[in-house]
Amino acid sequence: MPPETLTPERILEATEEVLRRYGPAKATVVDVARALGVSHGSVYRHFRTKAALREAVTERWLNRTSEQLSAIVAAEGPAPDRLDRWLTALFEAKRHKAGDDPELFATYMTLIGESGGVVDRHVTDLEAQLTAIIEAGVTEGAFHTPSPPTAARAVFNATGRFHDPCYAPEWSSPTISDDFEAVRELLLRGLTG
Amino acid sequence: MPPETLTPERILEATEEVLRRYGPAKATVVDVARALGVSHGSVYRHFRTKAALREAVTERWLNRTSEQLSAIVAAEGPAPDRLDRWLTALFEAKRHKAGDDPELFATYMTLIGESGGVVDRHVTDLEAQLTAIIEAGVTEGAFHTPSPPTAARAVFNATGRFHDPCYAPEWSSPTISDDFEAVRELLLRGLTG
Repeated sequence: MPPETLTPERILEATEEVLRRYGPAKATVVDVARALGVSHGSVYRHFRTKAALREAVTERWLNRTSEQLSAIVAAEGPAPDRLDRWLTALFEAKRHKAGDDPELFATYMTLIGESGGVVDRHVTDLEAQLTAIIEAGVTEGAFHTPSPPTAARAVFNATGRFHDPCYAPEWSSPTISDDFEAVRELLLRGLTG
Repeated sequence: MPPETLTPERILEATEEVLRRYGPAKATVVDVARALGVSHGSVYRHFRTKAALREAVTERWLNRTSEQLSAIVAAEGPAPDRLDRWLTALFEAKRHKAGDDPELFATYMTLIGESGGVVDRHVTDLEAQLTAIIEAGVTEGAFHTPSPPTAARAVFNATGRFHDPCYAPEWSSPTISDDFEAVRELLLRGLTG
């Protein structure tokens, strides 16, 4: 019997560690089970397929960002400030993920390529957070838009350069912070104007 | 002696044809010379290396878009209308390039990966066009921005989803036109507000 109860969270932690060690092409469920000192059957009791396990670990990785950001949605303060902080925090989070551990980032990019659904859910989640801030701004009288969800999606799409992984190589450019400021200001003016 | 004078333009036309036929991995300067019925030395008199030839043909391909757009910069009419038309025309041009001839598009994506400089010049060119429209808008009193070049770069960056090749797979999505409208409107309000 393993010393600790085998929870989904423990399996996902071990999976990330195994992915980091062997890379996405070689990592197997047997490696995960071995790292946990359990049989692969025990892992399959929680995640029915290798694909489901990989999707769950990717979702967990993406959720780390959305959970961080949800604190800004729930915070006090004027909506324009919170929108500003939210966009800045999203850019920072993605930039750190890409820059601090480029191998793990590349691993997750591979996993994301295997499953579109998990990214769609992440984007839906982030757009819902943006919608909540923009709705609050409309209530405060700070933002003017007929449709907060449409505006939220526009803000998300217009800031892709600063959160979409296809731009990760740009995030170390010396002009990227100025570029980000300029887009963020223009969008805020679009919402307040 | 070839029947027509061997001009750079004729060489570039033949190069595009050869790239289309053999793909970027196999196409050689000898193939281009053969297609023109000239020696490869004649081609090298105009383009000193294979890399220079590939860069020139890529530049010509990109310039087709910027030349189309420059007509909108030069046109009469209020700046907000022209900005609107310019952004729509850029999206349409890129979408057509990607959708109408996907193989040639993929070929040029490979060539672009070989030479960063040619894309940088293209982006500089497009941002200069945007700057001219935004400056006109400031003169007309329609746009309000302390720095037209900064605003132009922000508009260009914020519309990446609708012109950057990394998003080409999204351009056939059923929501892409609505997404484009929403971003364009938000940016226009940011400039006028």
